[in-house]
Amino acid sequence: MNPLRVVLVSPRNPLNIGAAARAMSNFGFSELRLVNPYEVAFREARSAVKSQHVLRDAQEFATLAEAVADCALVVGTTSRGPRALEHPIRRLELGGKIIARKLATQPVALLFGSEKFGLSNEDMSHCHWLLRIPTREEHGSMNLGQSVAVCLYEIIRQPKAVESKPLKPGASAEDLERLTERLEEVLGHAGYVHGPMEGSTRMKIRRLVRRMDLSAHDAEVWLGMLRQIRWKLLS
Amino acid sequence: MNPLRVVLVSPRNPLNIGAAARAMSNFGFSELRLVNPYEVAFREARSAVKSQHVLRDAQEFATLAEAVADCALVVGTTSRGPRALEHPIRRLELGGKIIARKLATQPVALLFGSEKFGLSNEDMSHCHWLLRIPTREEHGSMNLGQSVAVCLYEIIRQPKAVESKPLKPGASAEDLERLTERLEEVLGHAGYVHGPMEGSTRMKIRRLVRRMDLSAHDAEVWLGMLRQIRWKLLS
Repeated sequence: MNPLRVVLVSPRNPLNIGAAARAMSNFGFSELRLVNPYEVAFREARSAVKSQHVLRDAQEFATLAEAVADCALVVGTTSRGPRALEHPIRRLELGGKIIARKLATQPVALLFGSEKFGLSNEDMSHCHWLLRIPTREEHGSMNLGQSVAVCLYEIIRQPKAVESKPLKPGASAEDLERLTERLEEVLGHAGYVHGPMEGSTRMKIRRLVRRMDLSAHDAEVWLGMLRQIRWKLLS
Repeated sequence: MNPLRVVLVSPRNPLNIGAAARAMSNFGFSELRLVNPYEVAFREARSAVKSQHVLRDAQEFATLAEAVADCALVVGTTSRGPRALEHPIRRLELGGKIIARKLATQPVALLFGSEKFGLSNEDMSHCHWLLRIPTREEHGSMNLGQSVAVCLYEIIRQPKAVESKPLKPGASAEDLERLTERLEEVLGHAGYVHGPMEGSTRMKIRRLVRRMDLSAHDAEVWLGMLRQIRWKLLS
């Protein structure tokens, strides 16, 4: 995969610069570029205890044009809805996919505006299109570090992801039937069922046990507990 | 949709509490619950200038059991990989989908541990399963506010999202052919092509113009520019 250049345009808050770098490291991206950052903020972010290598290697540019010069696709982010903009806007779900595909062959720049104003019209004119994070419009903009995290997550997202740890093997029907019998027995001894158990009660208990959706291991544990309870009831 | 209860267990940092509340508001969730928060942090977060209604309405609980009592599904978050945990772990891509489906019928609790230690084994024992944000394992844990943002984004994510603003209507073949002719003419007058234009050059120019993938509006703009250039070249 080609590098994704995360470009922060005129960031002002050291905590946000640090948070952007941290999210990049979390999701496996390393090329951070800053355009005209507030110098004090950049210095503070860099000297923070938890500063990542991403931040230490960050490059600084005077203009946006220089920061994106080597990229074949330049995408700006906005959490505002479709305004009277001269740009096509894609929702993150779709736009993220397009960026991930493009990264297979060429470098891409993803731009984030300043905390207060977002990207300017001048900044946007460098973009091929805009990416919209699907937030509620009435709420206003997202936090910069959170925006970066959400966009990067969508880019590395694997739609086919399955459970990273398989669920434990389920109990066999034989185990479950043994468990059903043991439970019936205990309920009889405990006086929960009076007299010989009717077929309908037996079926209720059988279904109850099946609904527990037990693993083989948990079925063993239950059998042990019931065995002990039965022993105590009869002693 | 039923409420998703975002439950922060023992949060320590007011900025993180505020960031979690902000992400919730961004993505349209409102039920924030705090278990045993560091009181000073909770008070500070609440009194912050940008404090959201989400934070003002947040409920405080002494124990996790009380905080999740009314939920039919309790999911803990972790950015650590599958460890020797007694819980099934699902990656966010899959787990988020399951949560969204469950919310159609019943309330769900999504748990986030403290910044420093994450969820304890005791906390996890209240969970039906764990949700893993697919970060690089070598990097360590994610920032709390960013974790909340990424999880909520996945829950509201619409896989079928399309462009929120249709791309402008494309230029017709007729427009493109006019543009091609005008460009040929200008190139001839400018001396870019010497003598009568050959068929192969004409085809190159035709393909060049098609590759521009112009909207109808932009084709008009180009025609106007070429008309002016032609006028200047001949005057």
